This record gives sequence, C-alpha cells and structure tokens, in this order.
Amino acid sequence: MNNLQTYLKQQADVIHSELDRILPTINTRPARLHEAMRYSIFAGGKRLRPILCIAASEACGGIAEQAMGAACSLELLHTYTLIHDDLPAMDDDTLRRGRPTCHIAFDEATAILAGDALLTFAFEVLSTLPKCGALSAELALAAGSRGVIGGQAEDLAAEGKPADTDRVETIHRNKTAALIRAACVMGGLCAGATQDTLEALARYGEAIGLAFQITDDLLDETATLEELGKDIGSDHARGKMTYPAVHGSEQSKRRIAELIQEAKETLQALPGDPWILAELADFIATRNY
Amino acid sequence: MNNLQTYLKQQADVIHSELDRILPTINTRPARLHEAMRYSIFAGGKRLRPILCIAASEACGGIAEQAMGAACSLELLHTYTLIHDDLPAMDDDTLRRGRPTCHIAFDEATAILAGDALLTFAFEVLSTLPKCGALSAELALAAGSRGVIGGQAEDLAAEGKPADTDRVETIHRNKTAALIRAACVMGGLCAGATQDTLEALARYGEAIGLAFQITDDLLDETATLEELGKDIGSDHARGKMTYPAVHGSEQSKRRIAELIQEAKETLQALPGDPWILAELADFIATRNY
Repeated sequence: MNNLQTYLKQQADVIHSELDRILPTINTRPARLHEAMRYSIFAGGKRLRPILCIAASEACGGIAEQAMGAACSLELLHTYTLIHDDLPAMDDDTLRRGRPTCHIAFDEATAILAGDALLTFAFEVLSTLPKCGALSAELALAAGSRGVIGGQAEDLAAEGKPADTDRVETIHRNKTAALIRAACVMGGLCAGATQDTLEALARYGEAIGLAFQITDDLLDETATLEELGKDIGSDHARGKMTYPAVHGSEQSKRRIAELIQEAKETLQALPGDPWILAELADFIATRNY
Repeated sequence: MNNLQTYLKQQADVIHSELDRILPTINTRPARLHEAMRYSIFAGGKRLRPILCIAASEACGGIAEQAMGAACSLELLHTYTLIHDDLPAMDDDTLRRGRPTCHIAFDEATAILAGDALLTFAFEVLSTLPKCGALSAELALAAGSRGVIGGQAEDLAAEGKPADTDRVETIHRNKTAALIRAACVMGGLCAGATQDTLEALARYGEAIGLAFQITDDLLDETATLEELGKDIGSDHARGKMTYPAVHGSEQSKRRIAELIQEAKETLQALPGDPWILAELADFIATRNY
C-alpha cells in the first residue's frame, strides 16, 4: 500500500466514524427512514469529496478536525444525489456499489424522503460551524439548480439527443465538477485560506472534477460489473451524452491528461504541502473502479 | 376588509415580489427546471409561514425587512414539501390550489428536481444572513428526518392502520407544527429576541401549528372542491390518520379552541405588540380554505 492508499484508508475510516456519530440511529423515530439514510451512507463509497475537503484544508495549513463537519456535509449531500438519481423517474438504476439501490432495498417514497433528509441534514451540520455562511453558500450554490441539480436536469433532457460538445461540457461541469470544486473550496474556507488560495482550489477542483467524470464515462464503457458494482454500459444503452460518445476514447484520454496537468499546476499557489492533492489528481485519472 | 386581511394581503404581495426577485428567471439554464420551481412557488399560496415569521419579528420589536430573507426561505422550503408530497410514490395528488400539481404540469423527474432545488435554495438564502447559523439550525431541524420529513414518513406508514391517538399527534407535530413553529422562532431570531421570548414564540407556533392541521383535516372532510382547490375527502379515501378520524368532529373543534387559547396566552411574554399574531391564531382556527 503506497502513501496515498494509506491516507485514503485512514481518512475514510475517520469520516465513517464521524458520519456514524452524527447521523440519527436506526432506533430514532421514524426507524425505517433513518435505516434508509444509513443504508445509503454506509454503502461503501470512496468518500472522495470529504477526503478532498480535508486534504485541501491540510494543503492550506489547516488540520483535519477543522474540516470534518464540512467534509461530512459533502458526503451527506453527495449521497442524497445518488439516491434521487437512481429513482425510477430518473436513471431507474437497481444496483449501486454492488447493492440494491435505496428505492429497491426500501421503497420509492422512503428513498425520496431519505434523500431529502440527507440534503437537509447536510445544512444542519454546516449550521454548527463557525463559517456557516460561507460554507452554506458554497455548498448550496454547487448543489442547486445552477449546479448539481441543473446538471442532472440537463443530463436527463439530453438522453437520446445528437452529440453536442457544448452540452456535454455543461452537464459535466454542473453535475460532477461543481461539488468536487466546492469540496476543495470548503476545505480552504475551514483552514482560513485567502481569496487567492480559494480561487486556486476552485480551479484545481474544477479540473479534477471534469477529469473524474470523463474517467467515469470511459469506465462505464469498458469496466466489468465486478469492478464497478453497477450495470455496465447502462449510460450507453440509455443514449446518455457522455464525453467518449461525443469525442471518442482517444480524445477522452488526452483531455483527462490535460486536465490533470492543469490541476497540478494550480497547486503551486497553495501555502501548505499539496502532495496529497497532487496524488489524488493522478489517482482520479488512473482509477479502474 | 378588516385590519388582518389588509396586513395579510400587503405582506403576501411583498413576499411575492421578493421571491420573484431572488429566484432564478425562467430563462436561466436549465429553463424547464426553473420554470417548474416558479410554477409551484407562484401557485397562489397563502404565504402563512413567511407572514408568521415577519409578524413574529415585528412582535419582538423588529422590522419586516430584517425578517424577509428568513421568511422567503420558509416559503421555498414549504413549497418543496408540497411538490414532493404530491408525487405518485407519495400522496399521488393531481390537483393543488386548483391547478395541476408540479409532476402533472411538468413530469416526475422535473418535479423531484424542482423540489430538491427549492430546498437547497432555502439554505442558500439563509447563507447570506447575519444569523446564518441559528437560522439554518432552526430550519434544518424543523424540516429534517425528525421534523417535517419524519412526519411525512410516519403519515405514509400510518395509512390504513387503526386509529391511534399518539401516532396522529406525532404526525401533526412533525409534519405541520414543526415548520410553523420554526417560522415564529426564526422571526424572533431575526429581531434579536432573548431566549425566553424565543421559547414563547416556539410554544405559540406549536399550538397554532397543531390547530392548523386539525382545521385542515376537518376542511378535507367538509369543504367543497371550489373552496379548497384540491381533491375533497382524499385523506379519508386513502385511510389517512386524521385527528377527526381518531377523535371525531366535536372533539376536534374543542381541541382547536384549546390550542388557540393556549397560543394567545403565550403572546403576553412578547416585548412588542402581538396583535397580528393574536388575530392570526383566530384566523387559523376559523378559515374555510
């Protein structure tokens, strides 16, 4: 296990414990709702967004504890988007990370409500932090109708439409990159970073966020079910507007390399040691799951 | 038109203008999503929660402008709960305030996303306010899995079950009273109220919130379609656990009178003039729509 793998494992464990500590227990009324929330939160996600938040904070001279609340809010919010995206009226997916999706394991109403509750809880967690205003603004803007939700709406609207360079870029920027970018900026905010540093983190987050989504699109075409834990080629089958579908595999790989290069260059502007962020950028471009 | 009616009309107009000013226009990308958000926000609601927030603020010596952001966040949040409650997987309602519900006027995916976006936008609005932390905490706790969302989950779970005094009270407290209570407390917070005053506002809000829901249940059984703008007796037909179903109409009316009395008594503890809050309590108990 190299250093990055050790770091990822350690942080994921700490985030797991913290989420377990703050989420209402499954005995809290209504029990089934809280069970569904926990089912999806503890479904074996990589915790990429909270880890980025913590790593960004550390790269600005902060400590992990300062960024823990913001980190958890990002995972709560990300998980709600997965639950709602999987719903029958949306992507209608039955498998996620090798397990039945929330509306299959429970029922559709419970899945809608569990998603709503995780979204609401993300802002409850931020409400307890010293920088509630700046953090809530960053998260809400990234997650809202001009960010993640807008991206999902455009993604659904684009299904089956002819390939469109501008549209695929807009979808990726909003649906995926916006929250990854917010994770990095929120980490900087927790560490008291300057405006210049926050802007560098935003550029880094945007670049790796786009690279992450193109990698995801490529994996959807090539990985095996076992590696990915979800239906393979389902994007393709649904006529989703993916980057490889528009630009081809070779151009996709070149674009990923460019973005990772761009991301690493912005790291020079950070006041602390950015090695984790640099290795995370490479990890995102080379992952096979 | 008496003084209360004039006040309600004036405040509703100001809130309408403010919501119109802050919501993204229908030309904002993705247009259909923003159209759906505005369709539901401007569907002719009474604006009860934002008006309560403003009136509570004024009864603590504050001015309406101070409470306007918090007031708008309450209406944004309330509207999202209506959109999601109406979904086919939930209450499956096709009419709301005399118009097709959001998922009928648009489609199910758009309705889910429009609800998500309004919920997120509520916290974006709070993020810009000086007391973001306290206001977000109050709203998130009231709206979350132990508040409104939990109440809706219990409401769905109780359908067709035998009448249960404890359960109907829990559902009402969470599903309806929690947000009305939060509206009053948030108004107090905007005016810089003391802890004692906030507690009095919470008791007032809880009491009128419960009275509001029992009145709603009675109206569902007796009003005409024209008065109510939604399917009549639909709660009854679905086997919803309503207060009149458990306790009968006469006991329901007695309980409403008790709650209104209780609400008015708590108003004596407020530092400013509480006449609007007193009249609002009566209005809630005697409304016929």
